[in-house]
Amino acid sequence: MNNLVDERTEWPGSRCSVASALDVVGTRSTLLLMREAFMGTRRFDDFAERVGIGEPAAAARLKELVAAGLLVRVPYQEPGQRTRYEYQLTEKGTELLPVITALREWGDRWETGDRGPSVLARHRDCGATVHTRLRCEADHEVLAGEIELVPGPGAMVDA
Amino acid sequence: MNNLVDERTEWPGSRCSVASALDVVGTRSTLLLMREAFMGTRRFDDFAERVGIGEPAAAARLKELVAAGLLVRVPYQEPGQRTRYEYQLTEKGTELLPVITALREWGDRWETGDRGPSVLARHRDCGATVHTRLRCEADHEVLAGEIELVPGPGAMVDA
Repeated sequence: MNNLVDERTEWPGSRCSVASALDVVGTRSTLLLMREAFMGTRRFDDFAERVGIGEPAAAARLKELVAAGLLVRVPYQEPGQRTRYEYQLTEKGTELLPVITALREWGDRWETGDRGPSVLARHRDCGATVHTRLRCEADHEVLAGEIELVPGPGAMVDA
Repeated sequence: MNNLVDERTEWPGSRCSVASALDVVGTRSTLLLMREAFMGTRRFDDFAERVGIGEPAAAARLKELVAAGLLVRVPYQEPGQRTRYEYQLTEKGTELLPVITALREWGDRWETGDRGPSVLARHRDCGATVHTRLRCEADHEVLAGEIELVPGPGAMVDA
C-alpha cells in the first residue's frame, strides 16, 4: 500500500488521537471489559469472571473506565439484599463499538484458524452480517491505499 | 443502547476473536508502532523515536509484530553503508487499519478537548473526510443498537 503521508514530517506523536485513545483503552483487559459491557455484562463478578482476570485487577480497570467516563456505576437493589452497583455504558463508551468490532473482525480473519468465528454480528433489522468499513463523507467506500493524512487544527496548537 | 445479546450465555470469552486479536496487538506501544507503520515509518530508529519508547522495548515489540506476520523485515543498503533492515506492512498488518482509524476517530471526538484533531484522514480521490462506519452486507449503515450477536461456527468446536 501507499504510505498515508508522503513524508512523515515532525507531527508530534504525543498529540495524536490514537495515543490519546490508548491512554484510556490501551490495555488488553480494559478492551475486554468493554467487549463484555457491549455483550450486556453489568455486574462486577460477571466482568471479572468473563474477562478472566482477578477481582483486584477488574476493580482497578472498571474504576478507570468510570473515571474516564466510558461506564457509569449505578446502584441497584434486589429484594432483601443490600444495595449493589452495576456498570452501564455511557455514550462515550458506546462509541467505542467500532474499535471492538474492528478488532473482532481482524481476529476473525487472521487469528481463528480453521474453526471460524465464534461470534457473528448481524444487523438486527435485516439479518445481514455487520462489518467495519472506512467511508468518506461523500459516501465512498475507502480502501487503505486511498487515504491521505493531513495536519488538522490541533496540529497548530502550541507547536 | 440495547445489549448486543439478549442474555450473555456461556460463550467462552477465551475463544473470542477480540481476545485473539488483543493477544497480538493488545499493548499501547504495539498499536502505536502500527500507527507509525501506516504513516510510512520504516526504519528502526524512527519507530523508537516517534513512538517515544526505548530501543529495547521497540526492538521487542517489532520482533513480535514480525513473528505475528503484521510486518516483514526487509534488507536495504545505502551506498557505502552496511546492510540494514526496514519494516514493511504485510496484508495482515494493513488490514489493521480500521482498528487504528476507529481509535483515532474516538480519540478525536472524546479526548482532544477544544484543540481539535491533529491529523485529518481524507479520501485521496475526492478529498472528503474518512470515518469508520459499521455496515451490513445488505449495505445498510448500522447503529450500535441495531447489532445482535449470534454464535458462529467457531463456537461449536470442542465446546
